[in-house]
Amino acid sequence: MSDIVAPLRDVPIFADLPGATLAHIAGIGERRSVPAGTELFRQGELPKALHILLEGQVALSGAAPDGTVAVVEVVTPVDMFILAAVLTDAPFLMSARTIAPARLLLIPAAPLRALIASEAGLALRMLASLSLQYRKMVRQIKDLKLRSAAQRLGCFLLALASERGGEPKVVLPYDKQLLAARLGTSPEHLSRAFAALRAHGVEVSGMTVRISDLGALTAFSAPDEI
Amino acid sequence: MSDIVAPLRDVPIFADLPGATLAHIAGIGERRSVPAGTELFRQGELPKALHILLEGQVALSGAAPDGTVAVVEVVTPVDMFILAAVLTDAPFLMSARTIAPARLLLIPAAPLRALIASEAGLALRMLASLSLQYRKMVRQIKDLKLRSAAQRLGCFLLALASERGGEPKVVLPYDKQLLAARLGTSPEHLSRAFAALRAHGVEVSGMTVRISDLGALTAFSAPDEI
Repeated sequence: MSDIVAPLRDVPIFADLPGATLAHIAGIGERRSVPAGTELFRQGELPKALHILLEGQVALSGAAPDGTVAVVEVVTPVDMFILAAVLTDAPFLMSARTIAPARLLLIPAAPLRALIASEAGLALRMLASLSLQYRKMVRQIKDLKLRSAAQRLGCFLLALASERGGEPKVVLPYDKQLLAARLGTSPEHLSRAFAALRAHGVEVSGMTVRISDLGALTAFSAPDEI
Repeated sequence: MSDIVAPLRDVPIFADLPGATLAHIAGIGERRSVPAGTELFRQGELPKALHILLEGQVALSGAAPDGTVAVVEVVTPVDMFILAAVLTDAPFLMSARTIAPARLLLIPAAPLRALIASEAGLALRMLASLSLQYRKMVRQIKDLKLRSAAQRLGCFLLALASERGGEPKVVLPYDKQLLAARLGTSPEHLSRAFAALRAHGVEVSGMTVRISDLGALTAFSAPDEI
């Protein structure tokens, strides 16, 4: 059990929970290590466990009835996902697949819901976390409605550069097919978007992107200020 | 105060709260009636109060730095909005404007956060509500990434018809400019989308839409099954 308490402390919203609550969560939790390309669950299924990603990457994607697939989000560690489905005990709106070897912590849904109902501190942390996830989705909707694919790509690259403290050279975190799906565009349109960004100082070579003028790219892409 | 407790009972997540908690919320709450076209708050401001819409309609929209505006959602009664911003005390990602005369209940943010921290039942209800709102945003992202504007319009009309128990004649709930912005398209593209739906049995006249073949429209629009 103690080998689960330690990784739980790495999850920001759990970090300062009382030891007894953490031990309780660890007691019902289960570790899982899976290779890249593993399907963790499918859209339409009922959630069995809250997923906490400790290492690796997971793509969350939604499918239309005709089979077309859109990537809604790519989860990076440490983060939890499908909290909303677990809390409401409602069918998954998305499927999850690892895109890199991954280590996960699974917290079974029913005992977790019972624990949240009895621990006000845990409920508050879940609220805070879900609020952030909600706001992330709102940002993505604004992005999809307000920006061209080239501007969305520009914002994505600027966010990567800013995570690295304004580093002008960034490495794409996943392949271009997945990147296109995440940005809500096709691989062909993504290539055109990269070509369009050349005029704004962006050079791409394989997975490496060099941004020669952050100001020009910012002016073109118009990222959100908040 | 009792004139506030009654409308609170109409809010689904508050309906079965203990009387003392409702009285507490009513004690800090404030009623507000405003005409159509009133700006309730602006993107970037810090939230002062949770908004509960009792009557009317409110458009939530996000703006890009260049001033382009996208409608993220249209709130209909009874529903609360900007819960995530209030809970995290973070700047609004959206601006809110009434699009019909509206009656609102405002619950000041700081005392509400304190109340949630001390009342586990309230925290749980907020979690449930936010989970639903989160899933609504996920659905909209899938919609934007997976469907054409004509299919999104088709899904929107099918949802309206289904709310009326499969009624083949529906009335648009707001004007076409707002509808276009809500669907993430331009008024011109919305006209083309209505034209495209004619082949699938949809006739529009002013604000009234007649769907002659629900099956054909469903087959074309491919709405989500969950």
